[in-house]
Amino acid sequence: MKYSNKNEFEKANMFGTGMPNEMFAQYFIGDSFLNFLVKPGETPLFLANVTFEPGCRNNWHIHHAKSGGGQMLICTAGEGWYQEEGKDPVSLAEGSFVYIPTGVKHWHGAKSDSWFSHISLEIPGDETGNEWLEPVSDEYYGKLGEQ
Amino acid sequence: MKYSNKNEFEKANMFGTGMPNEMFAQYFIGDSFLNFLVKPGETPLFLANVTFEPGCRNNWHIHHAKSGGGQMLICTAGEGWYQEEGKDPVSLAEGSFVYIPTGVKHWHGAKSDSWFSHISLEIPGDETGNEWLEPVSDEYYGKLGEQ
Repeated sequence: MKYSNKNEFEKANMFGTGMPNEMFAQYFIGDSFLNFLVKPGETPLFLANVTFEPGCRNNWHIHHAKSGGGQMLICTAGEGWYQEEGKDPVSLAEGSFVYIPTGVKHWHGAKSDSWFSHISLEIPGDETGNEWLEPVSDEYYGKLGEQ
Repeated sequence: MKYSNKNEFEKANMFGTGMPNEMFAQYFIGDSFLNFLVKPGETPLFLANVTFEPGCRNNWHIHHAKSGGGQMLICTAGEGWYQEEGKDPVSLAEGSFVYIPTGVKHWHGAKSDSWFSHISLEIPGDETGNEWLEPVSDEYYGKLGEQ
């Protein structure tokens, strides 16, 4: 379900908007927010709720690991996009689930006319790291339209 | 938010009710349902949406592992309970998150007057296994009331 109004979205954003995502802002177009569900180091898995304002998306990127690794997205509010290089973008809404294997170039974010949240779950692994690449251009993103 | 009506609950149960949870029925009082979010063995982490009818709860149990292991509950619809031995029961609703370390005796399930769902996330580990113990008695469960 789309939410253009932030106050209405916040009622649906059950895992909380949290604080401005300053840590990764350089890799995002638009404003995003992070709400940690666990304290870093407290549990064997790290999870955070990531909220994107309408139009916000992260740059193309790749999750690397020597073994294990990758990411899962558990979508709980609003609508967004996920795209792997060479494939069509996939529309996401509450109830969508995405598994992103290591080595796959991809991006994710909100639709242009809706707030969007997903829980981000980092799969443990050895020598994990992200390779951040070029932004999703306004020209390309704009063509996705308000689907 | 509480849902006593199954049809109303299904609209909120964004990750799907799926099929009767026959595999673990012997360890549950009442009916529960499983909807796998990933195919077993397809990803490094196993996740399923678990749905409990009103009054349904699992037996006291302990997650064991030589290293790693444990479980996380990501609550997305309805209301339920989580309790660790020796502690007060914790009320759960959409947006609740629970980390269950290994070695902790506990149970979880629906409230007596509401359907309830959580995503169950099994944390990988070595030599993982569940130790199933006694049921949560009707007498004890009944005293939790319709909080």
